[in-house]
Amino acid sequence: MATKVKIAVIGTGRMGSVHTRNIATLIPEADLVAVCDIRLEVAQAVASELGIQRVVKDYHELLADKEIEAILIASSTNTHAFIMKDVAAAGKHIFCEKPLALELEKIDEALEAVRKSGVKLQVGFNRRFDKSLQQVHAVVASGEIGRPCILHITNRDPDFPAMEFLRVSGGIFLDLAIHDFDMARFQVGEVEEVYATGGVLLKPELKEFGDIDTDVVTLKFANGAVGMIDNSRKAVYGYDQRLEVFCSNGTAMANNETENTSVKGNQNGFLSAKPPYFFMQRYAPCYVDEVRLFIECVRDDKPTPTTGADGRAAVVLGYAAWKSLRENRPVKVSEIG
Amino acid sequence: MATKVKIAVIGTGRMGSVHTRNIATLIPEADLVAVCDIRLEVAQAVASELGIQRVVKDYHELLADKEIEAILIASSTNTHAFIMKDVAAAGKHIFCEKPLALELEKIDEALEAVRKSGVKLQVGFNRRFDKSLQQVHAVVASGEIGRPCILHITNRDPDFPAMEFLRVSGGIFLDLAIHDFDMARFQVGEVEEVYATGGVLLKPELKEFGDIDTDVVTLKFANGAVGMIDNSRKAVYGYDQRLEVFCSNGTAMANNETENTSVKGNQNGFLSAKPPYFFMQRYAPCYVDEVRLFIECVRDDKPTPTTGADGRAAVVLGYAAWKSLRENRPVKVSEIG
Amino acid sequence: MATKVKIAVIGTGRMGSVHTRNIATLIPEADLVAVCDIRLEVAQAVASELGIQRVVKDYHELLADKEIEAILIASSTNTHAFIMKDVAAAGKHIFCEKPLALELEKIDEALEAVRKSGVKLQVGFNRRFDKSLQQVHAVVASGEIGRPCILHITNRDPDFPAMEFLRVSGGIFLDLAIHDFDMARFQVGEVEEVYATGGVLLKPELKEFGDIDTDVVTLKFANGAVGMIDNSRKAVYGYDQRLEVFCSNGTAMANNETENTSVKGNQNGFLSAKPPYFFMQRYAPCYVDEVRLFIECVRDDKPTPTTGADGRAAVVLGYAAWKSLRENRPVKVSEIG
Amino acid sequence: MATKVKIAVIGTGRMGSVHTRNIATLIPEADLVAVCDIRLEVAQAVASELGIQRVVKDYHELLADKEIEAILIASSTNTHAFIMKDVAAAGKHIFCEKPLALELEKIDEALEAVRKSGVKLQVGFNRRFDKSLQQVHAVVASGEIGRPCILHITNRDPDFPAMEFLRVSGGIFLDLAIHDFDMARFQVGEVEEVYATGGVLLKPELKEFGDIDTDVVTLKFANGAVGMIDNSRKAVYGYDQRLEVFCSNGTAMANNETENTSVKGNQNGFLSAKPPYFFMQRYAPCYVDEVRLFIECVRDDKPTPTTGADGRAAVVLGYAAWKSLRENRPVKVSEIG
Repeated sequence: MATKVKIAVIGTGRMGSVHTRNIATLIPEADLVAVCDIRLEVAQAVASELGIQRVVKDYHELLADKEIEAILIASSTNTHAFIMKDVAAAGKHIFCEKPLALELEKIDEALEAVRKSGVKLQVGFNRRFDKSLQQVHAVVASGEIGRPCILHITNRDPDFPAMEFLRVSGGIFLDLAIHDFDMARFQVGEVEEVYATGGVLLKPELKEFGDIDTDVVTLKFANGAVGMIDNSRKAVYGYDQRLEVFCSNGTAMANNETENTSVKGNQNGFLSAKPPYFFMQRYAPCYVDEVRLFIECVRDDKPTPTTGADGRAAVVLGYAAWKSLRENRPVKVSEIG
Repeated sequence: MATKVKIAVIGTGRMGSVHTRNIATLIPEADLVAVCDIRLEVAQAVASELGIQRVVKDYHELLADKEIEAILIASSTNTHAFIMKDVAAAGKHIFCEKPLALELEKIDEALEAVRKSGVKLQVGFNRRFDKSLQQVHAVVASGEIGRPCILHITNRDPDFPAMEFLRVSGGIFLDLAIHDFDMARFQVGEVEEVYATGGVLLKPELKEFGDIDTDVVTLKFANGAVGMIDNSRKAVYGYDQRLEVFCSNGTAMANNETENTSVKGNQNGFLSAKPPYFFMQRYAPCYVDEVRLFIECVRDDKPTPTTGADGRAAVVLGYAAWKSLRENRPVKVSEIG
Repeated sequence: MATKVKIAVIGTGRMGSVHTRNIATLIPEADLVAVCDIRLEVAQAVASELGIQRVVKDYHELLADKEIEAILIASSTNTHAFIMKDVAAAGKHIFCEKPLALELEKIDEALEAVRKSGVKLQVGFNRRFDKSLQQVHAVVASGEIGRPCILHITNRDPDFPAMEFLRVSGGIFLDLAIHDFDMARFQVGEVEEVYATGGVLLKPELKEFGDIDTDVVTLKFANGAVGMIDNSRKAVYGYDQRLEVFCSNGTAMANNETENTSVKGNQNGFLSAKPPYFFMQRYAPCYVDEVRLFIECVRDDKPTPTTGADGRAAVVLGYAAWKSLRENRPVKVSEIG
Repeated sequence: MATKVKIAVIGTGRMGSVHTRNIATLIPEADLVAVCDIRLEVAQAVASELGIQRVVKDYHELLADKEIEAILIASSTNTHAFIMKDVAAAGKHIFCEKPLALELEKIDEALEAVRKSGVKLQVGFNRRFDKSLQQVHAVVASGEIGRPCILHITNRDPDFPAMEFLRVSGGIFLDLAIHDFDMARFQVGEVEEVYATGGVLLKPELKEFGDIDTDVVTLKFANGAVGMIDNSRKAVYGYDQRLEVFCSNGTAMANNETENTSVKGNQNGFLSAKPPYFFMQRYAPCYVDEVRLFIECVRDDKPTPTTGADGRAAVVLGYAAWKSLRENRPVKVSEIG
């Protein structure tokens, strides 16, 4: 049997605790040696439930541990970049939640540190590991339905996150649409130009800090294809996740999953179930698969499926969208940097 | 029994012969007294098959006939405007195929003639009469799912029309997307700004006369909603007609119809049927219903469901899209006129 | 142009008026020369609306007319057999609505008359002409999904017919399930044994004359396949018409059509439309196609797609089902005759 | 925090190892203290992977352990009954895989032992815990769509199990359809009479020991409803699991799940994914939920959701089906005992 990869998790909040549980129970290729959170009691609760031996408050302790080969960073976004720099300097491989950072300078510094140290970096773009979206990708990439012409992504949350989160989230393009920017690159290729529009149709409080709750984004790809993204912060019928890549010889789509397959028929028509409520449910298997793949990449010394460049590119597209919205004009990606 | 409305058809080509057959066989409220085509033999063939007594080459003959109350104009687009003026001057009600004309000046002259004479005018926006699109409209208009936030229309032809038609068609925004511009107004309301992009991904010959075969259009509505249209000249799997109006308390969609409801399951998965091949099949009932409603409006002196203003507005949006594409910027509808 | 087939319609009630209208407006290969009904005013109303010249009360008048080549019989069921005999004796081809008769002796006498005279006979099993059911048949008959193993037919009416009709209808197996017996033979082949069960779950009045409103029937086919039919007189969500032929290398299904393709999503889930209300809507194109094909068979002297033997076989299966229900045992078709 | 229920697993083969893993990783309410298998190395491998401390070969060792409160029995079917008796005598609660036994006498002895000792018994009818089938049950049980009239269950395996298993499996009615018999009772109620037919259409070797590979079963329920089950050992498109409860005021259905939600459209039509391959995938969450509920019933001293009587009733229906098939007549459940 292959040696297990020794890994520790920094940040055991919402996403971090999901990753911790997955590694502990569903990824036998990994040996979860420690968890870390500045709120020590949060880390302790998770560790206790899962039988994890070591719990630390200061992540520097983990860096000093020679046995630890890899670190999963799931702390708050504003800490990603400096932790990445430290972890890279310690020579440990990195799985970092998205976004890498909200500031491009921070991202660039962190990526430079990764580059210099030679460690592997994988960014947590979970949707790339969804079986339906992967099947679309496989069909399109095979060329059997010709070249991509029109991409359409619908990405609508079931409800608003907390206002305190929204204020520091980077707004709809860097928090919500960032997944779509990455998915657009995954399915069709590099984006050259972005046009974004939208507004506040649901929650007037957003205007205080310049965010919006509804948007549509047009993308022009380097290969000539065009794309559309639509986002809403609140789809009352649940988390709406659809994608289509229309090609010159056919089309490939990923439809919504549903909570169950039951249908009720009566005088009103046929009523079927809503999508799973939110990303934790909808993409649950992806969170396992992305980390399992990361572990394998570390163990077998393979390149990671998502890279620092992917993480940076999605943020750049988010900035391009914000600039486009504010200036009401198409913005070239090269304007952002 | 109510008196039948005496009507004649000018232009018995593709659309005209459909209307002629529908009136003759499926609209008992109308009395089809004559057909007219400058290609007399074309009109004679249709008339002979359907047992229509009178066939003329020159439409002025019809105008002189006091018995005729209404005229359906289905001649080629470049003749719509001047025939409308003549018919209006003769005091007969008008059903005119879309587009009213490709030039706004011609449209304005014709509409002015209609206004002066006081005759009724209905424009042939057949999709407004589709039962699925009407159901979406009914749900949205009722307010039960809140206010519209995002409109999405997919409108893709199964294949290119003849090149000679394409050269004089007004291009993708005035020939193909014009239905979507009208549908957008029908479902959500007035459009204030248009951003269009796209290109030639399928048929390089289009570049000779500046047309494109693939586009996406962003709409900003007066009520704050945003919209997306995507068009292609060639969807190999058939005529793709989908629409969604996402609202603050739900969503309403019209999916594709299919040629039949059979499904075959085997090792490859489950294979279901394509959409009906093209508009003649997909919207067949609409062509009957729109004219039946026109006949009723004439008979009962009611306002027509689609007006000259609707016909003009869709052409304006088409021009706005062309301007946007060429200047690569969002264009206000008010810039067009 | 080919000569038109001169045809007359006997019986202009519900089904007869549909056939009359179809022939008059949608089947140019036929020349509808007369309609006949013992309720003369009923026939006159239909004829007047459709511009049919000749209206008679006594069908014998039609038989004497040498010009008439074919007769469509859509009178009440208890008159089918003797009219068929007379029409056959007059040497005219016959399209007869189902069932041929409710008594096997009458059917046998009529079929013998047809055989002797050599005229063509087609029985109105409209569902064989449905595009979805035909597609299933084509897939199964091609052998591409192997040999049939399990047939399943769901056939549920949206509501009860009038009690006066039910009393003379032959009951659920001869009135409702008879279509399924024919469809079973069409899709899979000859039936050797029938087991039927069911009861009165919805309308107690049926017990007065021994009818039931809910049943399931098991079929054993000569080729070893097995089949199930389920029937109800009242599906509140509409006319439920589904079929599956499960085969050794796959399956072929025909699902319900729907009134429209709209879907509404909200907190309750996704609501889609019901099936078309009833057979007149659901199978409208079949009523045209079956008669058009009959006309072609007469014109081109081809065998009819459904025969007297088909008409008889379905009635035999209906009797087998009644016998099975009453004796609560599987009944061999050979027991009926 | 509530005390954990101490449980051990007897039998760590295919189903046993699934249960073991689920208890160890996904059911924190349970404390899995030991696993047992007469093939000690099989139990050791599972225990080692999951970090379970105690592994025994002889289940009597577990019975002597006072700490163990509950036993999950997943050994081979022919051992269920005597192990149940021993476990009951030891005063430990029992979760037993289906079927309880293939012989009614053995079942009766085991149930009598359970009754005398007063321990809880739950039978592993996993499908009762499926979210879609539960939703159907909830809708039907609520009465909102009236009373049940027609039940239909499609249950088709994707492929034959090994011949050595088939020889001792009890045949199609006791191995495959037994789930449907339980589901029928769960959804509609007690069955009074069974009629079964079918044959060998796929694998002639079955004839050697009197089994069949294709069947349809008709059920008559005490409440007047009727039911149909259809089974096949080989559906090449995957594990086919569908159910409908048609009621007097509507219908409730559970459709197949699919491997993913992607759809490919091209000239051939629209191709969607197959169902999950087999029961381990399709019903994975049920295996967790049924044991979690059992643990809760033990912990909170509640009645189990499936009982010994349920386990016995399904076997009785299996015997009734075999008797019906062999004698080709409807068999009353009371004939079996």
